[in-house]
Amino acid sequence: MMETTGALYEAYKTKMQKIADVKYASAVLQWDQETYLPVKGGDFRGRQIATLSELAHESFTDEKFGALLQELVSKEDLLNTEKRNVELSLEDYKKSTKLPSAFVRQMSEAVNKSFHAWIEARKKNSFEIFREPLDAIIQLKRQEADLLGYEKHPYDAMMNDYDKGLTVSTVDELFANLRPQLLTLLSDIESKPQVDDLFLKQHFDKDKQWQFGMELLTKIHFDFEAGRQDLSEHPFTTNFNSKDVRLTTRIDENDFTNMTWSCLHEGGHGLYEQGLPEDEYGLPLGEYCSISIHESQSRLWENCVGRGKSFWQYNYPLLNTHFPKQFENISLDQFHKAINKVQPSLIRTEADELTYHFHVMIRYELEKKLVEGSLHAADIPSFWNEHYKKYLGVDVPDDKQGCLQDVHWSHGSFGYFATYSIGSLYAAQLYAAIEKSNPLLENEIQKGNNSNVLTWLRQHIHKYGRYYSSGELCRQATGELLNSQYFIDYATKKYSDIYRK
Amino acid sequence: MMETTGALYEAYKTKMQKIADVKYASAVLQWDQETYLPVKGGDFRGRQIATLSELAHESFTDEKFGALLQELVSKEDLLNTEKRNVELSLEDYKKSTKLPSAFVRQMSEAVNKSFHAWIEARKKNSFEIFREPLDAIIQLKRQEADLLGYEKHPYDAMMNDYDKGLTVSTVDELFANLRPQLLTLLSDIESKPQVDDLFLKQHFDKDKQWQFGMELLTKIHFDFEAGRQDLSEHPFTTNFNSKDVRLTTRIDENDFTNMTWSCLHEGGHGLYEQGLPEDEYGLPLGEYCSISIHESQSRLWENCVGRGKSFWQYNYPLLNTHFPKQFENISLDQFHKAINKVQPSLIRTEADELTYHFHVMIRYELEKKLVEGSLHAADIPSFWNEHYKKYLGVDVPDDKQGCLQDVHWSHGSFGYFATYSIGSLYAAQLYAAIEKSNPLLENEIQKGNNSNVLTWLRQHIHKYGRYYSSGELCRQATGELLNSQYFIDYATKKYSDIYRK
Repeated sequence: MMETTGALYEAYKTKMQKIADVKYASAVLQWDQETYLPVKGGDFRGRQIATLSELAHESFTDEKFGALLQELVSKEDLLNTEKRNVELSLEDYKKSTKLPSAFVRQMSEAVNKSFHAWIEARKKNSFEIFREPLDAIIQLKRQEADLLGYEKHPYDAMMNDYDKGLTVSTVDELFANLRPQLLTLLSDIESKPQVDDLFLKQHFDKDKQWQFGMELLTKIHFDFEAGRQDLSEHPFTTNFNSKDVRLTTRIDENDFTNMTWSCLHEGGHGLYEQGLPEDEYGLPLGEYCSISIHESQSRLWENCVGRGKSFWQYNYPLLNTHFPKQFENISLDQFHKAINKVQPSLIRTEADELTYHFHVMIRYELEKKLVEGSLHAADIPSFWNEHYKKYLGVDVPDDKQGCLQDVHWSHGSFGYFATYSIGSLYAAQLYAAIEKSNPLLENEIQKGNNSNVLTWLRQHIHKYGRYYSSGELCRQATGELLNSQYFIDYATKKYSDIYRK
Repeated sequence: MMETTGALYEAYKTKMQKIADVKYASAVLQWDQETYLPVKGGDFRGRQIATLSELAHESFTDEKFGALLQELVSKEDLLNTEKRNVELSLEDYKKSTKLPSAFVRQMSEAVNKSFHAWIEARKKNSFEIFREPLDAIIQLKRQEADLLGYEKHPYDAMMNDYDKGLTVSTVDELFANLRPQLLTLLSDIESKPQVDDLFLKQHFDKDKQWQFGMELLTKIHFDFEAGRQDLSEHPFTTNFNSKDVRLTTRIDENDFTNMTWSCLHEGGHGLYEQGLPEDEYGLPLGEYCSISIHESQSRLWENCVGRGKSFWQYNYPLLNTHFPKQFENISLDQFHKAINKVQPSLIRTEADELTYHFHVMIRYELEKKLVEGSLHAADIPSFWNEHYKKYLGVDVPDDKQGCLQDVHWSHGSFGYFATYSIGSLYAAQLYAAIEKSNPLLENEIQKGNNSNVLTWLRQHIHKYGRYYSSGELCRQATGELLNSQYFIDYATKKYSDIYRK
């Protein structure tokens, strides 16, 4: 019996949604692991997550499902969006079937080992403990690149996981263009008097910080009926569908900045997830476009909105009601300067908007060489320390504050870092488009009204899911492909206001 | 190639543990649903749980797995415990395969409907809203009994789900014996002056109650490194393995008793789960014996220990440090009497230890008739109200405080209630055995040392998992099968101390 396209598409959708159920269940288990899991529960939790991942992978790479996708993709009576879903699923299917399950298991075991070694290495502040397990990961990633295939550079296959189509040649060019402009900005700033941010490092009560963070999330329209926030050691965002998006934050009682901008950052990620089309649950069009675009959403809210003077014009008085003593005699102007202080430093996650890119560039250069095979794990500390001196002018005192600071490699995540910079660049470009579309924007934000920012993002970014690639999505939204000039203009304007003679 | 018994057992174990991973993942999703799920997340969560249940069921009822079990069960070189695991899994397999998946789906849809109808019916305080969906459930349960098979009474097939081998003839006899003795005790109590418990209904700060509940759980040795407690609307216990056991409680600011004894009750359940053998993860011997035995553990800690004077001899001063004003001028003796006040009432979950059994008996009689077909849903309110008058002497003012109070039927759980009474009877019998084994027991408890209670339970109950049936486990632990005289003796002693002229 010939099945109709409608029936085939229904079968495809049912299958995809069941796989999504399993994947999201696994995400719940992982979220719980980071928030509420009792210490002794770790081992069993590990195997539960592994079993669910295996089930989802087995189900998705089933040959019969591949055949269904092949049949469907040639149908001419699918809706545009349906066709796009099937195309993307077929691409994903082909990619997934390129990795033999023996390889997947080997990688997962190596990751398990290297993650624990990384924890240990950090504890003992010694890269040497991490070296061998990391070399094993690097070898496997090189194999993975070969299995997945690439045109020019094996690192392309890595970056493709986080932003489809991103290549070494694109990123090389992007960074080559960006770097001198950033250096110019930076040296200009360094010639001006430094701003004072000491008052941000006072004692800030934990509960009050939590309360303020929750208020900020409400102000940017994070929907607490379709999400929540909890505490965890490292802030993250995860979603189990657009109606259940979970953020975490951490609170440092001696530094008010950590919690505040991690809330806004994760909140930006969360708004994106809440805005993905609900009726595409489990299908590609119900998923985020790319990690770069995801990062653009977090950076836009964290920086373009959340470090802007207009935003604090409304929220600084609110902050003062929580901490009247701490901000006594500190003007809005002083506050705004302090939260935008530029200073080369050691830790990526604590870097300002400008020097942040150098942290990324160093990792990008290093990973490229590791994946090429021109550097090995043993070479990392010296490469790291030399480049921190060269790019940022700082001396790295030890591995913990140096090449052991990020979790990514221990997870086998190579090719991720570039998306942090690219996300920031997209953020500036998108924000410029929002400003252009709405001349009253800053005025609205000054009055505490951020809803038109969100509405624009919902309409131009969120609702499309994976329909477009990152670049095309940006073009549809802003009229042009990624253009780092928007970031340079944004930064020039911001810092010339903050750093004056 | 002939496979060795060892290899076959390994294959069996691997399969069972993967199924357990999926089931426990589903349990995490359900726990999260009751504790932290954002309101809009309910629909997607429902389908995620359904998918996991389906996966676990499909995997367990796979014919190849049945053949493996059949082959293994005849092997003579299995260890005793291995043999027992395989026997029990084969029994479970045979039972699971008796229900066609179309029937399982039909039931799950009917349950979904009836659960929502029950919520609605309670909101509107009208049984009529629940009647039709409940009738559908009853019809399906009758079909289920036929599919599962039974010797004498279809209700036997229902009770079997919660305590294997429990039959109408056993429970009829048990209750026929218990009822007149309870009535004698009750009428004796009613002839004495009533105790005063008004001081328990003052205002008790929520955070302080929480704190005290956590302290009590620590005192009974609940391991917070292998478990946690959270808040939920209805207290429950769930586990994802013996190293991750989760309790919930609720707090009523105007009634100190709710939180305290729900902590001890759920704590008792939790201690059982934490005591199940870790190396039998996913296998029958790693699971609880029966719901009756589970309830014996909660009741033992809640009542035999937790409403005893010795327990409060140590903990009442501690309670006083949290609520010095509320218990000013209240002696330990007054407190002990108040927390053991006997008074016929409308709500099962709030009933004292004595009248509790009448609540159960009414439900038991009613369910039996519904499953026989001699009563229908429409007959429930009148049957309920008549029997509450007859057994407990109380007038039921409305359905919400009457036949709509329990969630069980809406979940399709018929045959459950008897295990509540039976659990209490087991608790008294086990506690008598513990007392007999340790003449210093009360003395130890008075000094705040409850560890020998737990040690005895670990050795005589927890470590066996499902190795024995409820009755046989009780015989192994106490020297005889279930004997309700222990409960009568326990109650007689307790209440003759509390209710005096």
